[in-house]
Amino acid sequence: MTPASLDIARLSAAYHSGDLTPTQLIDVLLARIEATHDHAIWISVLSRATLLEYARRIESHGMEGLPLYGIPFAIKDNIDLAHSPTTAGCPAYAYTPERSAFVVQKLIDAGAIPLGKTNLDQFATGLNGTRSPYGACKNAFDPAYISGGSSSGSAVAVALGLASFSLGTDTAGSGRVPAAFNHIIGLKPSCGRLSTRGVVPACRSLDSVSIFALCSADAHQVMTLAEGLDPADSYSRTVGDRPLPLTHFRFGVPRDDQCRFFGNPDTPGMFQRTQSQLEAMGGIKVEIDFTPFLNAARLLYEGPWLAERTAAVGDFIDAHSDAVHPVVREIIAAGRSPTAVEAFRGQYVLKNLRTIVAAQFEKIDILLTPTAGTIYPIETLLADPLQLNSQLGYYTNFMNLLGLAAVAVPAGFQSNGLPFGVSLCAPAGTDAGLLQLADWLHRQATSHAGTQAPLADISNFAWLHNTVHIAVCGAHLSGLPLNSQLTERGARLVQATRTSPNYRLYALPDGKRPGLVRARNGVAIEIEIWEMPLSHYGSFVAAIRSPLGIGTLTLENGASVQGFLCEADAIDGAQDISATGGWRAYLDSTKT
Amino acid sequence: MTPASLDIARLSAAYHSGDLTPTQLIDVLLARIEATHDHAIWISVLSRATLLEYARRIESHGMEGLPLYGIPFAIKDNIDLAHSPTTAGCPAYAYTPERSAFVVQKLIDAGAIPLGKTNLDQFATGLNGTRSPYGACKNAFDPAYISGGSSSGSAVAVALGLASFSLGTDTAGSGRVPAAFNHIIGLKPSCGRLSTRGVVPACRSLDSVSIFALCSADAHQVMTLAEGLDPADSYSRTVGDRPLPLTHFRFGVPRDDQCRFFGNPDTPGMFQRTQSQLEAMGGIKVEIDFTPFLNAARLLYEGPWLAERTAAVGDFIDAHSDAVHPVVREIIAAGRSPTAVEAFRGQYVLKNLRTIVAAQFEKIDILLTPTAGTIYPIETLLADPLQLNSQLGYYTNFMNLLGLAAVAVPAGFQSNGLPFGVSLCAPAGTDAGLLQLADWLHRQATSHAGTQAPLADISNFAWLHNTVHIAVCGAHLSGLPLNSQLTERGARLVQATRTSPNYRLYALPDGKRPGLVRARNGVAIEIEIWEMPLSHYGSFVAAIRSPLGIGTLTLENGASVQGFLCEADAIDGAQDISATGGWRAYLDSTKT
Repeated sequence: MTPASLDIARLSAAYHSGDLTPTQLIDVLLARIEATHDHAIWISVLSRATLLEYARRIESHGMEGLPLYGIPFAIKDNIDLAHSPTTAGCPAYAYTPERSAFVVQKLIDAGAIPLGKTNLDQFATGLNGTRSPYGACKNAFDPAYISGGSSSGSAVAVALGLASFSLGTDTAGSGRVPAAFNHIIGLKPSCGRLSTRGVVPACRSLDSVSIFALCSADAHQVMTLAEGLDPADSYSRTVGDRPLPLTHFRFGVPRDDQCRFFGNPDTPGMFQRTQSQLEAMGGIKVEIDFTPFLNAARLLYEGPWLAERTAAVGDFIDAHSDAVHPVVREIIAAGRSPTAVEAFRGQYVLKNLRTIVAAQFEKIDILLTPTAGTIYPIETLLADPLQLNSQLGYYTNFMNLLGLAAVAVPAGFQSNGLPFGVSLCAPAGTDAGLLQLADWLHRQATSHAGTQAPLADISNFAWLHNTVHIAVCGAHLSGLPLNSQLTERGARLVQATRTSPNYRLYALPDGKRPGLVRARNGVAIEIEIWEMPLSHYGSFVAAIRSPLGIGTLTLENGASVQGFLCEADAIDGAQDISATGGWRAYLDSTKT
Repeated sequence: MTPASLDIARLSAAYHSGDLTPTQLIDVLLARIEATHDHAIWISVLSRATLLEYARRIESHGMEGLPLYGIPFAIKDNIDLAHSPTTAGCPAYAYTPERSAFVVQKLIDAGAIPLGKTNLDQFATGLNGTRSPYGACKNAFDPAYISGGSSSGSAVAVALGLASFSLGTDTAGSGRVPAAFNHIIGLKPSCGRLSTRGVVPACRSLDSVSIFALCSADAHQVMTLAEGLDPADSYSRTVGDRPLPLTHFRFGVPRDDQCRFFGNPDTPGMFQRTQSQLEAMGGIKVEIDFTPFLNAARLLYEGPWLAERTAAVGDFIDAHSDAVHPVVREIIAAGRSPTAVEAFRGQYVLKNLRTIVAAQFEKIDILLTPTAGTIYPIETLLADPLQLNSQLGYYTNFMNLLGLAAVAVPAGFQSNGLPFGVSLCAPAGTDAGLLQLADWLHRQATSHAGTQAPLADISNFAWLHNTVHIAVCGAHLSGLPLNSQLTERGARLVQATRTSPNYRLYALPDGKRPGLVRARNGVAIEIEIWEMPLSHYGSFVAAIRSPLGIGTLTLENGASVQGFLCEADAIDGAQDISATGGWRAYLDSTKT
């Protein structure tokens, strides 16, 4: 039996229990694809025979070693799937690649089943989903409304339960706007984290492969399976994980007068509600000036970066003018005009804006914005295609230019039943942290993802620990002389607690440090647990002097944590101060 | 009395002993400047009154807290010194800044005395030193020969003993070619390490402030005092130090058929000799394909990057055509032609080359090349100014485009008495490591710097330790199962040795790990010392499981080093295997 939602955890559980096989799922999905035909989601769907072949191949392999065993996914049709045509939304442009894109192949290797290629704004130029000869893609909640784009079909496929996840691309918002409009998670990873080999370029220097999913945990799992340095993509890189604080995080929001909702009556209040939800999660709100973000956004369509689109497909468009969507043609033709001098000047402007934004991210940990201020009926959008499309990108266009990672998160429904979403963003490398916060926010804001069953009750989010917990018992305690060795390395106090009753504490002869030693006739000793970025732990440990060192302590609650211990032979002659219960109490006792 | 060389150590010692005062030095230097007037080194020299004011100000302050107390330096005339005109080698372009460049101010604040502004190839466009209305700058060793450029005067000033160090700029080799031709150290730091605020741009995205000095230690000291994030320069950044191995380092050299010496009879052999000297220092020679470096170089003058020069001074040149050197005018005018499409395509090509070069730096630690293949008389250069200038950049043009740090090092004298030099380069952040290797090589290759007294006998180089030594005694030993935890973190075996005779070794119950414990009735235990980048030490330590931990061990030779220890209370019931002398011997004994 097919589970109520195709999220990876539920689907994997169904496979594991034997309730369902990938072969069985294929027919379920083909029926759903047929039933939703009018949404204009697909440009091509693999044949039943090909899909069954994928299913049988993994079934004969078994679940072992295939983390995405039988998980169906959709692929935006500007990303190569071997032996299927890639159209980029333009039939005359189509070619049939011999090999799948780097990320597609990684996902297939992990057991995922590609269903087909999805509709998009031609050449990924647009944020609305209507600019396609394959038909305007329709919103999962109301077919009269736009799906958002350019990754239109990929978003709607996940929202309607046709695929567990899907791949999009995101240069200016194409992986986030459609996520917001279809009430699912849209991850735009740090630039370079996912290889773009086998992807038709939009702006080569800015393009990201993006991930649509029903929950943050799925987006995270897909990202970690698809990522990796691709030697054949010079923009690919290994992105170092950069932790975000998960308590007392500071979230920036644009000044009230800089938030634009384009006349929507509901979304301003919904954005306010989301802010309150983040505060309820422990977030601290900080108003910021949104101007530098808006200035960066302007460079994308009003500045020299248009020339990247021309560099990618300008020669094709010149040669096949009639085959190209008129709005797309007009936009991309403008990229012939700027000079190299203007291109470099644009880069100087951008570099300066990146510096300003980096300074803003000293004051905040993440930025919260609406993903889009409002949504339009397809008819309305088509009546004013440039202006209204531009409004859709108000909160998204700047992201890749500024080198940020972003997650679009569902944030509930407007009174007309259409979804509203918000985006969290932060500097490169924060993908996992953003997804963790997004997961919490998603669950606070709404119980749903797409049009499918409610979110699973329990988050199966596997937070990647890039920090280490350290127990300190002496001069590193809060307020004591060496505490700055922790704080200057970005460490945060997690907990004041005690060891298990198996330790003794000694005042070392230098008078400045205690020595903690595990002992059979021990007592519980007061300690603090600090969380430190792993990248700074090495220099911290390297500074520890004999006879102290780092070992593993047992806590009062039975848990283990690394922390300060003392070599046992160094305590001969040292004063046993265990009876005071801890170094701070001992220091107090010596003052009197 | 003025010391035999103006290197910082000797000059500081003279001040410290009272043999000399800054005030006294001023007149010595003004006399030398007068005596070398024909070299066309200076565009402007500060008045005696102004210099004496600088001297008296620091004398009244005293040496305390002024690391560059009374150290005289010269400034290339495209870098601002407050209240002195900046000409960039073009009188019509001149302006008088209110404030000094960021780096200049930092050096003055550290006690250094600016002497004046030095001659350059106009707008820093050239590598030869002749393209200046202030006269062709003359080589320190033979005035018939070119000085190299564009930082011509700054290099010759240091070589002739007019200044302890000087500032240049380096976009395509301007900080290295003149160092080679005048037999001094030329450091081109990692891009962004030194702020370029207050510098007339050549190629804004590539420009570096460079340092000329008599020895590597001086260049290092000046770099550390001048560096730092400048919020007002968007290209400025904090460069993380990246250690280089100082033993068994792999040095790449271009394939023989890719080395060009332009007919010079001496320099091929001198370059061979330098390679042997690096091998004698423990280097391992690796031949590499120089093609990607040459392809990157081509982008600078044959591709869209010319447009950066046009963006910087093109409008000025258009308005003051007659005021500009004809060769410089011709070069920069060409930057009007390329389109933004070509600029972006050039960036894609460069990005790809950077990927290829990064892969090459997986196989080598540093790249060694000549700094320039040959040197020309001024007359010869002027007869063919574009072609011969281009030859001077054969080994330098690619450096900033590829994001590398580089040091030009003196490597002895040709039979005609003119200097020859080599360059070491490596990825960004290796500045200190390159300078350390450069210091050793300098001392192997020649006893001199510039035309001055021999190098001080003892290197006062303060190597920045960014690595940690770790003693391992169990499964981390070479060839044992956990050794990869060291090697995958870039650790290298430094030494196989033993502890002091104060330890006992136990086989822990898991059968896989030994426990080392300090004990009074101990013996010496076999260990290995591994050197690991500090940045990876944290994740290494975090993976250690109880009852093992990291403490401080005493070695056979009495030295201390961090390494694996075991909690003393965990050895109850564990087998004492101290008698075997070490874990490897114990494992061998269990096999038989």
